[in-house]
Amino acid sequence: MNQTKLIAPRKLAGFWELPPEKQIIFEQMQEKIKKVFEQNCFVPLDTPVLELAEILLAKSGGEMDKELFAFSKGPTSMCMRYDLTVPLARFVASNANTLEFPFKRYQIGKNYRGERPQKGRFREFYQCDADIIGSETLSLVADAECVKLYLDCFSELGYEVMVKISNRNLLFGLIESLNDQEKANDIIILLDKLDKIGKDALKQSLIDLGISDENSDKYISAVAVSGTFNEIKEKLSLLANNETYTKALNELEEVENYLTAFGCNKDNYEYNIGIIRGHNYYTGTVFEVFLKDHPEFPALGGGGRYENLAGYFTERKLPGVGMSIGLSRLFDLFDQHGLLPEIKKSNIELFIIPLGDYTSHCVSLCSYFRENGIKAEVAYDNKSFKSKMKEADRRQIPFVMVVGENEVNSGVYALKNMTTGEQNTLTKEECLNELKQ
Amino acid sequence: MNQTKLIAPRKLAGFWELPPEKQIIFEQMQEKIKKVFEQNCFVPLDTPVLELAEILLAKSGGEMDKELFAFSKGPTSMCMRYDLTVPLARFVASNANTLEFPFKRYQIGKNYRGERPQKGRFREFYQCDADIIGSETLSLVADAECVKLYLDCFSELGYEVMVKISNRNLLFGLIESLNDQEKANDIIILLDKLDKIGKDALKQSLIDLGISDENSDKYISAVAVSGTFNEIKEKLSLLANNETYTKALNELEEVENYLTAFGCNKDNYEYNIGIIRGHNYYTGTVFEVFLKDHPEFPALGGGGRYENLAGYFTERKLPGVGMSIGLSRLFDLFDQHGLLPEIKKSNIELFIIPLGDYTSHCVSLCSYFRENGIKAEVAYDNKSFKSKMKEADRRQIPFVMVVGENEVNSGVYALKNMTTGEQNTLTKEECLNELKQ
Repeated sequence: MNQTKLIAPRKLAGFWELPPEKQIIFEQMQEKIKKVFEQNCFVPLDTPVLELAEILLAKSGGEMDKELFAFSKGPTSMCMRYDLTVPLARFVASNANTLEFPFKRYQIGKNYRGERPQKGRFREFYQCDADIIGSETLSLVADAECVKLYLDCFSELGYEVMVKISNRNLLFGLIESLNDQEKANDIIILLDKLDKIGKDALKQSLIDLGISDENSDKYISAVAVSGTFNEIKEKLSLLANNETYTKALNELEEVENYLTAFGCNKDNYEYNIGIIRGHNYYTGTVFEVFLKDHPEFPALGGGGRYENLAGYFTERKLPGVGMSIGLSRLFDLFDQHGLLPEIKKSNIELFIIPLGDYTSHCVSLCSYFRENGIKAEVAYDNKSFKSKMKEADRRQIPFVMVVGENEVNSGVYALKNMTTGEQNTLTKEECLNELKQ
Repeated sequence: MNQTKLIAPRKLAGFWELPPEKQIIFEQMQEKIKKVFEQNCFVPLDTPVLELAEILLAKSGGEMDKELFAFSKGPTSMCMRYDLTVPLARFVASNANTLEFPFKRYQIGKNYRGERPQKGRFREFYQCDADIIGSETLSLVADAECVKLYLDCFSELGYEVMVKISNRNLLFGLIESLNDQEKANDIIILLDKLDKIGKDALKQSLIDLGISDENSDKYISAVAVSGTFNEIKEKLSLLANNETYTKALNELEEVENYLTAFGCNKDNYEYNIGIIRGHNYYTGTVFEVFLKDHPEFPALGGGGRYENLAGYFTERKLPGVGMSIGLSRLFDLFDQHGLLPEIKKSNIELFIIPLGDYTSHCVSLCSYFRENGIKAEVAYDNKSFKSKMKEADRRQIPFVMVVGENEVNSGVYALKNMTTGEQNTLTKEECLNELKQ
């Protein structure tokens, strides 16, 4: 099989691949999130990675985005998915007659963006999405449930977070009351930039847009409003007073009531009118999740309420609310900042080293330990005894058992604790007891 | 968001998508396999779905296969992977200096074949692969370990299987001893067809190839040899006698010794010289796994020993042995034959129906049950009480609790067992006890 010319073994630029010792941690995180989704009665969906181009491009009116991985196969144009929402819309629209609503699905899967490779951006990345889809209407319990999901997920992962919640229509109502509705979208886009550009630059931008000095100050003070619902309730009630605004405020209060009913810890969520979320398909509640110890980190995920999931695909009105965790990005960020759980060099718990021709006996012992829940491994390669002991040390394997003629004949084994250096002579049943501790 | 013209919501032909109630089962199967792989000290790897075309086409000398999903992005030619072995070879070759050998990795992932859509063939499908890679040499313990993995996986999944094992060099040795080595590959290809074409057609094909009548009979009787090692040992020892053959027979015996040491149940594996596995990169032990109750099903997976994993990418010799389960195909086959575990219409265990304006109270109850491990759901949509009861019935939810004014005031709830029709009035703690049983 050796070739005269070797091909350099490289992966595509911008694609992510963890070494196994980190992949173990990554998968444990996936499993924890999955467990939380399932405990909250979400069901799994696993849509194909490839979709018809027509479906994925429905939003943009069929226009091809150069960041898509798109190609043709025979007469068929297809794309790799860039998110999990469009495939969900396609699935729900085509199965609307058989699904039970509210339909609660989760999906943990890879998405693709064909952008130029750059630091901290991946062209293949995991998203963990949970959405609740109603038929015609959907209770605000669903919005609270998505916020609760964040708290449960991060509590399971072992991180303290702060979920920041708003309702986009508070700002639209305020804009209406200040008679700036013609410039509503531009104002929203600017306000969304506060964190990036700062107050002074924001104010200048608003004035450049033609907003009055007084109104600019009102918008800036509105997006600065944050705190528990009780803390901000009065402030908010004074900001504006029209149908759009009052409806949004009432919705926010209802969400707060459900969050209280769910027993959400008030240390882990707050209201923040500056949470906007660029996507204009959000039409009500919006939220983002931040790491409490690192408020300077970008949001670890976000979501919100949308009026209609699948308007491109069906006339049936399907309102929904969803949350998403950008798991690849989160993992990479946490890894850079030393925030991941301890990475073990090996998952092996017991290394059984044959001394002489006793591999079969070791295999039999290994099988006994594995069947009893211990990750045991036989050092069956033909390295020297010394290099196997070094390997156990280098791989941080906590226990080693050396098996030679005496051990095979007597049925008692020396079990060495590699951390303490302690060594005990035990039967295999006794070894199991010690390993179980 | 409503468009004047709707786009029909369809997925790509030949792509697979399970309804959530089946997806739950599919994921449980994945989790069980993953658990077995990990218990046997395999570590996870999650390579990108896309690879450089140059890497994936290394085997075919760079020639493009029309069954690949391949495309270019800027100057870069890329393909979606068609198996998990080439990405493994690429990974091991480029990380050979930091990996510990034997390197035991598993990967459960989607693969892609751009063939014409047809029944029972998928263009996107899951493979569950486990491979053990050595550096320069690799003990035959690894071959036995892969067979043991099949037994453990299917035992965990709850199916009785028969793993059929051979060593490809038995046939090559026999061919050598009968002086047919010039036609060795053609003979092997024909013998691999026995199950499809039957004995008579096989014999005619061999004779057409120019093999003598006597030799043809010998080959046909060789591939019919099957049974436990003890049953076939004598028969095999008489078939041929040269270096290739004797070495293969010794290897098979060593594998048998390790299988015995691993405690493999002899009802679940046998030797069958007719197991050949077309791929010519297998160079020693080969095996396939069959469902015991349905021996007529195609193999559910297979694998074997290869002399060198990554000869295209590195000069370092990396012998390996691997096993694979074709999970999508298996699931589809089992589904068609009613062999899957019982499919539940819903994962909800308790449906809490508010009677009147008591949604918040129900949300609070729901949170209590979920925190205690019960998959509880509030019927929070605005359907009628009657239609919610019907829904509980239709979705086969085992328990229902109706919460109205009396319940909220008294703190005792009527818990209805939907299977027996029995109804008990209980505190929430008592409900939890009943639900836990």
